[in-house]
Amino acid sequence: MTEARSLDARLHHPLPELPEASVTLSEISSLRAAGVAAGIKASGRPDVALLVADAPVACAGIFTQNLFPAAPVVVSREHLRANGGMIRAVVVNSGNANACTGERGLADAREMCDRVAAALGCRPDEVLVCSTGVIGHALPMDRVRAGIDLCLAALSSEREAGRRFLRAIMTTDAFPKEHGLALPGARIAGVCKGAGMIHPDMATMLAFVATDARATPEALRSAIGDVAARSFNAVHVDTHPSTNDTFLLLATGRAEAGFGRVQREVTDVAGHLAWLIARDGEGATKVTTIQVTGARDHAAARDVADTVAHSALVRTALFGNDPNWGRFVSQVGNAKSVRSVAGLRCTLQGVTVFEHDAPTDFDRAALSAAMRAENLVLEIALAEGDGAAMLMTSDLGYRYVEVNAEYTT
Amino acid sequence: MTEARSLDARLHHPLPELPEASVTLSEISSLRAAGVAAGIKASGRPDVALLVADAPVACAGIFTQNLFPAAPVVVSREHLRANGGMIRAVVVNSGNANACTGERGLADAREMCDRVAAALGCRPDEVLVCSTGVIGHALPMDRVRAGIDLCLAALSSEREAGRRFLRAIMTTDAFPKEHGLALPGARIAGVCKGAGMIHPDMATMLAFVATDARATPEALRSAIGDVAARSFNAVHVDTHPSTNDTFLLLATGRAEAGFGRVQREVTDVAGHLAWLIARDGEGATKVTTIQVTGARDHAAARDVADTVAHSALVRTALFGNDPNWGRFVSQVGNAKSVRSVAGLRCTLQGVTVFEHDAPTDFDRAALSAAMRAENLVLEIALAEGDGAAMLMTSDLGYRYVEVNAEYTT
Repeated sequence: MTEARSLDARLHHPLPELPEASVTLSEISSLRAAGVAAGIKASGRPDVALLVADAPVACAGIFTQNLFPAAPVVVSREHLRANGGMIRAVVVNSGNANACTGERGLADAREMCDRVAAALGCRPDEVLVCSTGVIGHALPMDRVRAGIDLCLAALSSEREAGRRFLRAIMTTDAFPKEHGLALPGARIAGVCKGAGMIHPDMATMLAFVATDARATPEALRSAIGDVAARSFNAVHVDTHPSTNDTFLLLATGRAEAGFGRVQREVTDVAGHLAWLIARDGEGATKVTTIQVTGARDHAAARDVADTVAHSALVRTALFGNDPNWGRFVSQVGNAKSVRSVAGLRCTLQGVTVFEHDAPTDFDRAALSAAMRAENLVLEIALAEGDGAAMLMTSDLGYRYVEVNAEYTT
Repeated sequence: MTEARSLDARLHHPLPELPEASVTLSEISSLRAAGVAAGIKASGRPDVALLVADAPVACAGIFTQNLFPAAPVVVSREHLRANGGMIRAVVVNSGNANACTGERGLADAREMCDRVAAALGCRPDEVLVCSTGVIGHALPMDRVRAGIDLCLAALSSEREAGRRFLRAIMTTDAFPKEHGLALPGARIAGVCKGAGMIHPDMATMLAFVATDARATPEALRSAIGDVAARSFNAVHVDTHPSTNDTFLLLATGRAEAGFGRVQREVTDVAGHLAWLIARDGEGATKVTTIQVTGARDHAAARDVADTVAHSALVRTALFGNDPNWGRFVSQVGNAKSVRSVAGLRCTLQGVTVFEHDAPTDFDRAALSAAMRAENLVLEIALAEGDGAAMLMTSDLGYRYVEVNAEYTT
């Protein structure tokens, strides 16, 4: 055992120190935001959020692939098809996921959109809806209605309004997750909630990124897959896509820049939000970026990264600051897409630990010390082709077990 | 949080009380066994084991699918092809896996077989070899040679010899894993070592099951896949097949019964050994048997069971005695082989927690209390076909993290 710490000490790790975002959602031209406490959460914390555009704005969405999509996912998908990717508002509640709630849940999700649409004077299908929280319970619609009305009255384009929106979408997040960029000719702001989960919630991820750059819905739809592949779809916390995962990308078109000019920065904002989700992975002490190169193709590279990131053995080694090359390379050998591990090179924090079919003579103590960082980079270089992929994963420590085994019934 | 226990208390769980096996390997007609301490392990515990048959006996093997097979796996595969499935001996060392050791490792594995063959007066390819322990280090061959010679001198068919063999194959196992059956007309005995791992070892599983029933090598080869599918290949501890996994099935042919008459009992013995491996999964407090029915076919059912068992969220819920139906059913919704979750029913310890697309009104406290058992059964019934599969998984608690994050460099 490395050292004789009490187990209570082993449970508690410092959180990252994060600056406030320089731009919030409500500061994107045309957008106003609000977040209020409506009593859905027993804690009394904010739980209804609303984002409204002065006029229809372009929007694209990516939703969970889980075969149990929550009611708001079903409704938002329908609405995005019906409205052609031009929306007026997004209404969100936290504290209740409206998942596994049957016809009643669908009716409730539609009513949330209807209520916002009536107030804005737009079509219901121009409103999208998201929920996160406990699954299997009907929404307390009286509180949801009251919360929506409070939000409608509180909508603001002030800086703090965006942060109130953010606080109202959080569930078990240990810290708020936001990022923004003010570029010449366009602004970008994003918020998300991460993968903290308390019974019987799941790892719902909700992410909203908006820019005032100009984009058609078609342009956003064709871009969002690539943005997500380099951000939210490159985060691994616990292999458990939830019923409610939603990523919405909005472009209000009030600024000079076209979306193509800012797509890279939009991806950076989304990527930073994704890093924050991994960093807040339950009990995580660090984020490890797994970079795979030399695979047969991108899909094979991604399979290798997934296989390594899914290993509880790998993730506990990362938690324990253990440069355990055996776990890393043998897990590469378990990836179904890999045909040959000949020429495999494995590098951790810049130190090559395995090449030429054997471990190197690296300084284990020095590398272990270098692993006590908030960001790790694990490079896996195959020699099968040009395929590359990146994945961010949290580590797995005592606190993960506590969060997931004890905050329960 | 369920209760205010100290974290040290949360780390320690009672081990199962296990009876000694009624038949040991050395008590199978024609077999003799030995196990000695040769100094490969720093602890001084037994680390070289030998199993010898008086004459060639039928044998079939299943080996790791990892793309980094250890040298003994490569050599044993070669030998089983060359000898047509008739062997004289199996030599095993623990404390060093002889994996990622290149040409030197292959030469060492061959030398182990040569040395046994010379003493027995048989061909080297009639000897199989297994190793388990640290990877990436050359075997200390002087000690291995001395250990083999000690074993050759100590070979015995007495009851305790089989147990000495067993103790010499163990690494981090918390308890010995053996099972035996004396049937009318045939005896069956099996031992294995499980999935405990200490840096940079991996979850190597070695299992040896022998019967004195009569079988041709062909019969064993055609049976072993089915035996493994219901035992060692139905165990999930941490998704990380090792470089050294080996299961050997032997039939000495000295008894009356044909193998077909005892295959079911052989499977039972292997199944119990597999249960012991899951029970000794690092820090495990219980074994959960996941039974999937109604899938499109067997492969789909197995995929569902794997997907559920691989979820750290599911495994922490099992550890926490949390009847968290949301985690179970949503993970079914993540299984790639599932097309529809309509009609899904999920039952835990005989209590249906989810059906008709919604959670049932079960007594959560009573079911949580019922989960404080050494054996759990989680039934997942789909409505897509006749496919069924079974998988045993350990739970994931604090001790798993301690074992895998702290017993390191």
